[in-house]
Amino acid sequence: MNHQNDKQRLAEELHRLLRRNDPAALAELLDEHHPADLAQGFVELPPDEQEQLLTLWPTAQVAELLSELAEHFTEGYFESVHPSVAARALGEVPADEAADLLFDLEEDEQEVILNHLPSAEAIAVRKLLRHDEDTAGGRMGLDFVSVPPTVSVEQAQQLITESIGEERHVHCYLVDDSARFAGVVFIDRLAAADHELPIGKLREDDYPTVLPELDQEDLAALFQRYDLLAIPVVDETGVLLGEVTVDDILEVIREEASEDIFKMVGSSDEELEVRGAFSVVRLRLPWLLICLAGALLSGAIIHLFSYALEKVVTLAAFIPVITAMGGNAGLQSSTVVVRNLALGKVEPVGILRTVLRELRVGLLLGFFSGIIAGGVAWIMQGNPMLGLVVGMAMVGAIIVATLMGAVMPLVFKKIGADPAVASGPFITTANDMIGLTIYLGLGMLLLKHLS
Amino acid sequence: MNHQNDKQRLAEELHRLLRRNDPAALAELLDEHHPADLAQGFVELPPDEQEQLLTLWPTAQVAELLSELAEHFTEGYFESVHPSVAARALGEVPADEAADLLFDLEEDEQEVILNHLPSAEAIAVRKLLRHDEDTAGGRMGLDFVSVPPTVSVEQAQQLITESIGEERHVHCYLVDDSARFAGVVFIDRLAAADHELPIGKLREDDYPTVLPELDQEDLAALFQRYDLLAIPVVDETGVLLGEVTVDDILEVIREEASEDIFKMVGSSDEELEVRGAFSVVRLRLPWLLICLAGALLSGAIIHLFSYALEKVVTLAAFIPVITAMGGNAGLQSSTVVVRNLALGKVEPVGILRTVLRELRVGLLLGFFSGIIAGGVAWIMQGNPMLGLVVGMAMVGAIIVATLMGAVMPLVFKKIGADPAVASGPFITTANDMIGLTIYLGLGMLLLKHLS
Repeated sequence: MNHQNDKQRLAEELHRLLRRNDPAALAELLDEHHPADLAQGFVELPPDEQEQLLTLWPTAQVAELLSELAEHFTEGYFESVHPSVAARALGEVPADEAADLLFDLEEDEQEVILNHLPSAEAIAVRKLLRHDEDTAGGRMGLDFVSVPPTVSVEQAQQLITESIGEERHVHCYLVDDSARFAGVVFIDRLAAADHELPIGKLREDDYPTVLPELDQEDLAALFQRYDLLAIPVVDETGVLLGEVTVDDILEVIREEASEDIFKMVGSSDEELEVRGAFSVVRLRLPWLLICLAGALLSGAIIHLFSYALEKVVTLAAFIPVITAMGGNAGLQSSTVVVRNLALGKVEPVGILRTVLRELRVGLLLGFFSGIIAGGVAWIMQGNPMLGLVVGMAMVGAIIVATLMGAVMPLVFKKIGADPAVASGPFITTANDMIGLTIYLGLGMLLLKHLS
Repeated sequence: MNHQNDKQRLAEELHRLLRRNDPAALAELLDEHHPADLAQGFVELPPDEQEQLLTLWPTAQVAELLSELAEHFTEGYFESVHPSVAARALGEVPADEAADLLFDLEEDEQEVILNHLPSAEAIAVRKLLRHDEDTAGGRMGLDFVSVPPTVSVEQAQQLITESIGEERHVHCYLVDDSARFAGVVFIDRLAAADHELPIGKLREDDYPTVLPELDQEDLAALFQRYDLLAIPVVDETGVLLGEVTVDDILEVIREEASEDIFKMVGSSDEELEVRGAFSVVRLRLPWLLICLAGALLSGAIIHLFSYALEKVVTLAAFIPVITAMGGNAGLQSSTVVVRNLALGKVEPVGILRTVLRELRVGLLLGFFSGIIAGGVAWIMQGNPMLGLVVGMAMVGAIIVATLMGAVMPLVFKKIGADPAVASGPFITTANDMIGLTIYLGLGMLLLKHLS
């Protein structure tokens, strides 16, 4: 299977059929392709052709297609069609997908559309919209099967038959008379069981449940730790509210990883969705300007030491050596900490241990790099004192950078800010300033009698 | 559920029971806790206590524990116990987990252990070991259920009953007389179907299959695109070889994301597993030294222009401004491209488009940053020409950095190298050199009559 080519071919076919104005052939494409593939072809088209397709295709398929597309397509669609058309599209997908599609609209826009939905569906979607998008409640679906533990396997199988739609079931949930969660039965156990058995006998021991407020990153960690296919979401009184399935978690994991990577360089994972140069600039420029402010401060530090630089102009040659090494060493250590935090690996007890380890690491990295850089400075410039200054400054700059890289994400986490942000331009800039002060300060102290 | 605390508490309990020398209580802990949780507590212990536990606990549980642990634990275990003990442990887990545990040993070490396994199991494990670890073949399991399409639903349910062990089934596979793949039946459909029906009637249309050579990143993309729970692996003749399940994919996605993040900063995702400062230094130092070599070249460039610097020492103050901005802008654009490649989003056709977009982005980012930096230089130093030099150099440095950041990962990919490596110290260093040359070159040209 070569999806890269398929995608391109599909986009070309859509384009051709649109130009030939052939709605019948376009409708046929819908049957032939998985919505996920259609979405891949769809995004390759120019915006006006995308709009044409969304009006041409039946609402049911449009809803499925929207579920596969990035947020800005959805918003654009809901803003351009009549609320009743939007409601018809939403009526065709499960309530959790409908809620996902509506999440980014303003509350009054949501209500206008929801008022066009049959009331049972509108209530279900409203319930889901109450939860934060990035929590178990925001991720859960409502298409689960639940039965009392006393029904027979055969009766349960009957119930599942009636509920089978687009969604796949991996669990049958047990609930008591008050709809409170009472256990999980795996579907394959159910398929393989004696028909007369009360289904309660097939209950799994100690199956985990989560509250709707649980953050999606912690939720993903649970799925990974216990190899789950789905997890029940219950409220504080134990009432079964919904089910998060592993396909949602695949999305969560990828999203969270992208988010961290982009934050680390001072951009946003929105970049994966936007296309125009201006939108990209809007995402990247703020951080670059913060970085510029920091860099100008570094410049001011150099300016403060311009007396030393005038005396020993070769000091300038090692400025980028100090800043580049500090920047890279800091980025390395912050990455480990940010990644560990994302994977749930560093606990509060671990901070001191992390700091001590990074102190040793920084010392070692600084020692090796300092000897080389100092040696080069000595040999190239024939000035042993310059070598000493470069070497010592390198050790200092790398230790500080490594420590800052390890500690700042933990501090950020502690004060409730995002640790990934700490490891981007922020740390790099701070390291530049500290490294330069150490370097030029040492230079001024030790080289003042030379010139 | 608070897993951070649980983990710490479990580690303390293990430690306490070991010191009290209470094997009965230790064995009880095994029953009470999920292997994934035990593993979390286990890694917190000092190495000698870890070793004690591995000898104390029954081989069956040790094997399950090893499956949850990082590679170096496994290697250590297999090197320290007699091959017959290792084989007994492997005999307790499914063939694919056994193969995973053996993957990192030398072939002769594998054989010594496999020779102690019952021959049917040894053959199954050897088959799996033939595949590369990071492919569909390396990730697949052998515990799937397959039946001819002609058997009744009831017969199939009977077969599943017999095969149910630790693993959960989400599919029942259909195979012809020559064991060739003939379709997929979802387990929930099977649970809900009329017992007399031939199972072939429940076949899903167009279910995807993969070859064992498929790379795990492409495999993960398939799971995400089509919301799969499992996928059959077939050879070129169509024979069903195994099944990759979604729990393996959760691991793949997280691994690949970690891998990319660490490569981008010149380290390795092994850092998530090692603890000692020396092991960390071994992973980070090589890249730092490459970066040092590059930084020294940047220093040499500054040295080349020392004549200009002697004349206008304030030029030095803007050196970190140019390098920091180039470095950050380059990192931003390379991150987008690396991430897009990881998510399978940039196809060959897209290179030119990517370059053109980043050219516009670089121009805009450079323009805004250049105006500010140039303005500051002018006002602070009262030298409009210096402002012009800083501003123009900023535009040039950012355009080059943005372009390099976008293009280098694509070039790396083209020549078969890892795109993530391109975006780390490598690009930053190259950008430093180019940026400095532009800056100091311009400074020499435009400022030579000043002093």
